[in-house]
Amino acid sequence: MTNYIEGKRPVIEALRTNMPLKCVLMADNLKKDGLVEDIERKAHKYNVPVKQVPRKKLDGLSERGSHQGVMAEARPFQYANVSDVVRAANDYADQHEGRALVVILDHITDAGNLGAIARSANAVGASGLIVPNKRAAGVTAATYKSSAGAISHVPCAQVSNLVSVIERCKKEGFWVAGASEQTDGCLWDANLKGKIALVMGNEQEGLSQLVKENCDFFIALPQLGQVESLNVAQASTACMYEWLRQNW
Amino acid sequence: MTNYIEGKRPVIEALRTNMPLKCVLMADNLKKDGLVEDIERKAHKYNVPVKQVPRKKLDGLSERGSHQGVMAEARPFQYANVSDVVRAANDYADQHEGRALVVILDHITDAGNLGAIARSANAVGASGLIVPNKRAAGVTAATYKSSAGAISHVPCAQVSNLVSVIERCKKEGFWVAGASEQTDGCLWDANLKGKIALVMGNEQEGLSQLVKENCDFFIALPQLGQVESLNVAQASTACMYEWLRQNW
Repeated sequence: MTNYIEGKRPVIEALRTNMPLKCVLMADNLKKDGLVEDIERKAHKYNVPVKQVPRKKLDGLSERGSHQGVMAEARPFQYANVSDVVRAANDYADQHEGRALVVILDHITDAGNLGAIARSANAVGASGLIVPNKRAAGVTAATYKSSAGAISHVPCAQVSNLVSVIERCKKEGFWVAGASEQTDGCLWDANLKGKIALVMGNEQEGLSQLVKENCDFFIALPQLGQVESLNVAQASTACMYEWLRQNW
Repeated sequence: MTNYIEGKRPVIEALRTNMPLKCVLMADNLKKDGLVEDIERKAHKYNVPVKQVPRKKLDGLSERGSHQGVMAEARPFQYANVSDVVRAANDYADQHEGRALVVILDHITDAGNLGAIARSANAVGASGLIVPNKRAAGVTAATYKSSAGAISHVPCAQVSNLVSVIERCKKEGFWVAGASEQTDGCLWDANLKGKIALVMGNEQEGLSQLVKENCDFFIALPQLGQVESLNVAQASTACMYEWLRQNW
């Protein structure tokens, strides 16, 4: 996760979406305007300390040179571990007539997509997300923004090996459904009742070969248009809501 | 629509998503790099002329001062008219066992959301979008980008009065389904078979009162999470796919 958010609007966004922040840093010669006042108000509301620092300090911390006199230091995102996610899913299933959903992201690289998926996952009552710890998006300020803060409410585990997570899910009684356009399985013909681990593939390549070999079955969304494929966050949303529909 | 796109990456994105461009303008003292070469290659591929101009000219045209020596002049987006959209939908219904979908956006204000909705609309085979011509997003470069170019394939009509469009749709045999969280109607209980006009509300306020009064019925997506509501593009996607599922 980027440790610093820079610029007035990004800092407002980080506060608004409940991103965990250590502090807000403001240049000591900063001219007050409506945005700065908004930052001060929100920082107060969310109990984030505001520190005055020399502008030169911000220049030194800034990666993109776009701090506008305001930066915020983020706390590292607290990833869950897989056992937490699986336990939460099992508890959820006990309380919801056997239904539970875990979403596994096979190397999604865009932090905004990760956030959009988290937002929909939260909406359908998914128990957690599982993402790889390499060559994949982790939780950043962009994730908070596109999730509208939902990433704070969906446990997200970072793992080194997706295949062993899939095996673990199977042992725990999940059916593993891989979303892939390259298969015959139509989303609506699949049985998504009960405990499902939904696996969504990378934006460009889809599911990786090893992950594919470990899925129980595949689901594809019919795509009738001229554009090559749906955005992965949109496709995830449609699949997650179909899971909820079948279990409703 | 903004007439000029500024900056190397935004120009590449505009070319990549098939945004209709009059020409690309390059500062005559521009240093070639990989991005500039990419722009030249793509401009050639899509038959967009590249003109050398004095950097001062770009400074004058630039609104945000971020042109990096490269701008593109966009052609105005060609909006369809409502009759075109309705005719396309009726033709589609004739060829697809009676199913057709028109999506009416009740003052969606984010051009990126408009694009994301266009992308999903294209994927499900919707016949067109209808948007208001005031206080609502029109088609901009952001729309091309978030639609991955799909906005070129989905007729989009801009109108002054949504209620009269809704009345028109009813006369043409469409059922008008309003997406609203403030109703009891669950998406999955609704009958979305046949010719449907789906009305999605503004990001903040949802459907306006007058539009609501003119809908035949309402559909709501169950939302079980802590975050106030789904993004309107995600919600649209889930509703559009439910329409396709019921008609599949």
